[in-house]
Amino acid sequence: MEQKVIDSVLERVRAALEHDKVEDAISALAMLHPADRADAFAGLPQDDQVEILPRLDTQAAADLLEELGDEEAAAAAAHLPAGTLADVLAEMEPDEAADILGDLPPQQAADALAQMEAEAAEDVRPLLGHPDDTAGGLMTSDFVALRRHTTCQMAIDFLRGLQRDAATPYYLYVVDRDGRLIGVVGLRDIIVAAPEATIESIMGRDVISAAVGTDQEEVARLMQHYDLLALPVVDAGSRLVGVINYDDIVDVISEEATEDLQKIGGTEALDEPYMLIAFWRMIRKRAGWLVILFLSEMLTATAMGFFEAEIARAVVLALFVPLIISSGGNSGSQAATLVIRAMALGEVRLRDWWRVMRREVLSGLTLGAILGAIGFMRITVWALAFDSYGPFWPFIAATVGLSLVGIVMWGTLTGSMLPILLRRIGLDPATSSAPFVATLVDVTGLIIYFSVASVVLRGTLL
Amino acid sequence: MEQKVIDSVLERVRAALEHDKVEDAISALAMLHPADRADAFAGLPQDDQVEILPRLDTQAAADLLEELGDEEAAAAAAHLPAGTLADVLAEMEPDEAADILGDLPPQQAADALAQMEAEAAEDVRPLLGHPDDTAGGLMTSDFVALRRHTTCQMAIDFLRGLQRDAATPYYLYVVDRDGRLIGVVGLRDIIVAAPEATIESIMGRDVISAAVGTDQEEVARLMQHYDLLALPVVDAGSRLVGVINYDDIVDVISEEATEDLQKIGGTEALDEPYMLIAFWRMIRKRAGWLVILFLSEMLTATAMGFFEAEIARAVVLALFVPLIISSGGNSGSQAATLVIRAMALGEVRLRDWWRVMRREVLSGLTLGAILGAIGFMRITVWALAFDSYGPFWPFIAATVGLSLVGIVMWGTLTGSMLPILLRRIGLDPATSSAPFVATLVDVTGLIIYFSVASVVLRGTLL
Repeated sequence: MEQKVIDSVLERVRAALEHDKVEDAISALAMLHPADRADAFAGLPQDDQVEILPRLDTQAAADLLEELGDEEAAAAAAHLPAGTLADVLAEMEPDEAADILGDLPPQQAADALAQMEAEAAEDVRPLLGHPDDTAGGLMTSDFVALRRHTTCQMAIDFLRGLQRDAATPYYLYVVDRDGRLIGVVGLRDIIVAAPEATIESIMGRDVISAAVGTDQEEVARLMQHYDLLALPVVDAGSRLVGVINYDDIVDVISEEATEDLQKIGGTEALDEPYMLIAFWRMIRKRAGWLVILFLSEMLTATAMGFFEAEIARAVVLALFVPLIISSGGNSGSQAATLVIRAMALGEVRLRDWWRVMRREVLSGLTLGAILGAIGFMRITVWALAFDSYGPFWPFIAATVGLSLVGIVMWGTLTGSMLPILLRRIGLDPATSSAPFVATLVDVTGLIIYFSVASVVLRGTLL
Repeated sequence: MEQKVIDSVLERVRAALEHDKVEDAISALAMLHPADRADAFAGLPQDDQVEILPRLDTQAAADLLEELGDEEAAAAAAHLPAGTLADVLAEMEPDEAADILGDLPPQQAADALAQMEAEAAEDVRPLLGHPDDTAGGLMTSDFVALRRHTTCQMAIDFLRGLQRDAATPYYLYVVDRDGRLIGVVGLRDIIVAAPEATIESIMGRDVISAAVGTDQEEVARLMQHYDLLALPVVDAGSRLVGVINYDDIVDVISEEATEDLQKIGGTEALDEPYMLIAFWRMIRKRAGWLVILFLSEMLTATAMGFFEAEIARAVVLALFVPLIISSGGNSGSQAATLVIRAMALGEVRLRDWWRVMRREVLSGLTLGAILGAIGFMRITVWALAFDSYGPFWPFIAATVGLSLVGIVMWGTLTGSMLPILLRRIGLDPATSSAPFVATLVDVTGLIIYFSVASVVLRGTLL
């Protein structure tokens, strides 16, 4: 749908709400594609949301909640009376209903579940209690499982019998009498095969599946790697218990990238859209890391303290401190980001650490030599042109140039090895955020700089 | 397939190649899932790749090239004789074949295209010449288009007639006599409908489509937003010219996230896997940004130069320089990352700049107050415990505390507004990388710090 069509509908919705014509707003919203309707709804003030949701019919409310983000959907659903909520949840895909129940206050969730239609509640119940970020938390219990002796015609008749608005199954799974997953058939294979052929004769036997506890990142990797539209989920007894559809995975990939990015940028993952997260919750997520970084960075004051005498004798040394330490920080952030992303994409594994290290030592030396040369020239030019650094400027230029080689190499090495080390001890590599690496390198960078200075400048300035 | 099964097959492949038994290696590779086979192949030394590829039968070679990354596939294909290459390309999905042709040396691509089977070449030719990162570059010409008066039974018979290994169409598109896109039908709708029903009677008329020139990021957003398995692509005359499948989009989402992440980490997007990119090409991509940052950071030396007299009189001021400027940098990186990601996800638009600014000024003040208080206490404690900062320590503590409030607020504001400004003038917001923001804030941070110092310390230390 064109953006300007959407915008004009939004205009009508807002105008209707201003005049308290909720019914008009609802019929304007109905003109939008469900996905755009959900966006429009999410953008309304909470008062209006609370007015609109209970007046939608059950199916429309269910569709709306399915399209909203999990937290938004739960926040809106929380305002429905338990009976209405139970009816709406019963109309939803079981996995989406389970996500909302998981995000509601426990008492409210229990009430809604108790009042749900028995059959729908039975679909939803096994999905509760799986962590959101595992295969069990992503799967839906709404899938088609066939037995091996079913004929293709029977399968087609079965599909005809499904509700028109049920989700289209891309794959049909085949289970044995104990419910164990033994095969998979594509929708098209059934159409193309002879009507009397058995499912067993056309099914693929090499089915890729995930266990309920599999992490969502691994689920995404499997589906992306094998180009799967859906991934069956099995329990410890290899029994088929659910199916994860590709649209959930697209969201997971996007979500995981957001998390990594936010961590690399030096904040805890927000887990909520930037414009919607409550101010103080955001501050808490941001302040945590900033304070940790600040406390670590205090070590720079301590390190500088050790060299106070040197600075007092050669104030000129202080002038290059920001330049020196930021170069270490920048090269470290760069290396860390490259390695973190390569690990997330599976391009770099733990056992590759030695190859990464060799590569980064060489990169660090090369990059350090480039920056060192520029730094040396900068000081030379300023000294000759403006006489900025006194008679001993060649020694200062040498100090800065040599320090840069060492610091950039050290920054690159630290930045590239830290994510690997973190993964090795079981932490998320993305925790070694750019600011974290920069802080770490700042302290060591100062020590390198002043050590080089005390050697090069001995007998002249120091 | 289990990782250990894959590893044991890899062991056999390597052993066979060591004894020059290429045929044995090929039959071992054949045991793997095509996706894993491609990974295994990509991991082999180039000599072995060149040995193996020409000995595969045409279909196997086509499958292998389809599963490889674009650059890897082109590099491997370049070693095939033109005739063989033409046959292999003819077996591939047209969009994958076009990607390879686009990455081959022009003469080699022209030769292969000239020797291709006429029908296959006709499918591929219209796909060439679209930039890789547009809808035209992503689409395949291998799609099913029906006319409105076709019956469902005719459509099913048509599908039966397709090759068994052709890609399953998830949606069938409906075009008018001029080839203009007028509707869409899901595969299941056709199965479920009465055999004699016309396609027109069951098709959806509100088809979401993209123009050939649409950017891949927008394509991904559309497909993700509307949960589409495939997106039809139309030319300027609304004629259906291609279809983009979901698996290409999953890769785009991942690719775009990688690019943003690498830019935020302060490097040009590598556009190639970290372990595969040539050393000097990587250095070029990394050195560019590092040098720009270094040159800008030189301004800190100039800024510090202005305050050389102050530092000489109160060396203690120099001790806190790294702490002060890194706090501005960290808070700036944090704000920039949050805003860049929110913009990439469509949560923040240009017109929201005022709301973002208000939010970030408040965040900056709050975060600055927290860090300022910690900084003040740190100096107080050290002064009382170790007498580190002389008799005027309360003034130094005040200078550091107040500067931190100002610098963190300034960093936060700069970090959050810069991506919006960049987008406004048509640049990629992710260019305002964490290191870039940090550098910008470093220079201004020094000025804030020494200005606060010259006011607070007047009459005591200065």
